[in-house]
Amino acid sequence: LQILGANSAAPAHGRNQTSQLLNINEELILIDCGEGCQLQLRKYKAHMQRISTILISHLHGDHYLGLMGLLFTLHLQKKSDPLHIYGPPGLAEVIRIQLKYSNSVLHYPIEFIEWEPGTEAMIIDNPIYSVRTIVMKHRIPCMGFIFSEKPKKRRPIEKKIPLWAGSSVFKDLKDGLDLIHPETGELIPNNELTFPPKKSRSYAFFSDTLYSPELAEKIKGVNLLYHEATFMDDLRDRAVQTFHSTAKDAAMMASAAQVGKLLLGHFSIRYRDLNPLLQEARQIFPESYLATEGESLYIHD
Amino acid sequence: LQILGANSAAPAHGRNQTSQLLNINEELILIDCGEGCQLQLRKYKAHMQRISTILISHLHGDHYLGLMGLLFTLHLQKKSDPLHIYGPPGLAEVIRIQLKYSNSVLHYPIEFIEWEPGTEAMIIDNPIYSVRTIVMKHRIPCMGFIFSEKPKKRRPIEKKIPLWAGSSVFKDLKDGLDLIHPETGELIPNNELTFPPKKSRSYAFFSDTLYSPELAEKIKGVNLLYHEATFMDDLRDRAVQTFHSTAKDAAMMASAAQVGKLLLGHFSIRYRDLNPLLQEARQIFPESYLATEGESLYIHD
Repeated sequence: LQILGANSAAPAHGRNQTSQLLNINEELILIDCGEGCQLQLRKYKAHMQRISTILISHLHGDHYLGLMGLLFTLHLQKKSDPLHIYGPPGLAEVIRIQLKYSNSVLHYPIEFIEWEPGTEAMIIDNPIYSVRTIVMKHRIPCMGFIFSEKPKKRRPIEKKIPLWAGSSVFKDLKDGLDLIHPETGELIPNNELTFPPKKSRSYAFFSDTLYSPELAEKIKGVNLLYHEATFMDDLRDRAVQTFHSTAKDAAMMASAAQVGKLLLGHFSIRYRDLNPLLQEARQIFPESYLATEGESLYIHD
Repeated sequence: LQILGANSAAPAHGRNQTSQLLNINEELILIDCGEGCQLQLRKYKAHMQRISTILISHLHGDHYLGLMGLLFTLHLQKKSDPLHIYGPPGLAEVIRIQLKYSNSVLHYPIEFIEWEPGTEAMIIDNPIYSVRTIVMKHRIPCMGFIFSEKPKKRRPIEKKIPLWAGSSVFKDLKDGLDLIHPETGELIPNNELTFPPKKSRSYAFFSDTLYSPELAEKIKGVNLLYHEATFMDDLRDRAVQTFHSTAKDAAMMASAAQVGKLLLGHFSIRYRDLNPLLQEARQIFPESYLATEGESLYIHD
């Protein structure tokens, strides 16, 4: 996971607006796309062309205004693979109207998938991973996303596999089958020839939301939770009024959901120094970290 | 005139997309607004709140995609004065639809003025200056702008004004009236008491356009001409095909129109080093300069 921006409403203090790049098995998924996202992608030398999927949590400017420019730049770079864009109702209209007025026909096809506000769904489901939406409590329809790797295969231990077994057995062993000698019928149990699968990892992205303790059940035990922390807890009233969370809220969510690590983001422009937010979260959930632009995190199981 | 961005289609080589800030008597006018314009305004410490007017030449992304983010940021900064936005048909729709989906009501009123494509008009006319549109030849409706200061007032020479004249005579002297003694009827000619007015200056902004020699007549003698120079002349075919100009084209226009200075901009992403473009222009028009981000130019008569 690479952080491209972690500021809220306006860019400030050298911090850009919300955008993250998630690499799952070398497939790149862009999560939100604040203004200047294409500049950030360029700055951090991301392989823009490999972005297959863009998820937009909601239609507040700080989460999507970089999308149009990125689409044009991918066009100029002669992208030809399809791009899948998931977002709230209205996103396709906003894009199409701007393509119309600029008289542009993009080199690559876009598949728009708009979700029904308030209804959670599995929006991506392939052999490697799935993505589910999770309803945020915000001023306009807004979704978070839960990314889950599918169960992985067992890992054959090459030196333990008998010489009589051909290379074709690897697939069966990965699938958990025992090894049987084609002539003698001798059986070697799978677990003597393979290591167990690596654990499947999960990541929850909580976009703009009022603190919603009831959501903890839905992200129980995820390896990493990104949770917005627009304010510190002394501005709780302001957070509630604007449907945002505090650093303390984010930590309470992480604690209740027993997540592996917590990543704080969506910082208000009023905070130049973010350490006080980090300290506030760590008092409740020690495994809290700040989302820092340009930083890449490996999500551990 | 401050250059906020002078690159074409995509931001590159640390250069942002088209945007300029023109200060006329401390009133700020923003000309085009490429993605990240608000970041540039912040970087160069411009007084965003003093922007009264935004002119958008056309609806290609590199000329307007920063507008929505700027409007939101002005809102967050509690702007209350009206903002006047001039642009092609469609611009108001693009903005209104995004305000609708973000459920935003801005703190300040916006007055949209959309021009009729292909029809030149005086779009601003006040006691200090006027702005006329000038039709560019581009792939979609596109306008350039001619800014002209109105004739200025004469400048009274304080030490030459007789003691019997009260301070109320200054206004009349500025307006060119002679001074007459209220009792004796003695007349002192205005030109003995005042310096002539400072010259009125003019600036022509040529947005994206195919080289159009017939436009030279309309900008005859302007003090400064900004002309796009997307390519060098060895790529003339590409320029013609995409309705853009070369550095040589820009210089020929400057020469034919007998302008004071020429400012080149809208550089293609293919040019990291811009000096060859400058040299190409200077061979034809020596008073050629490169539009350089962050640089402020005083427009001389």
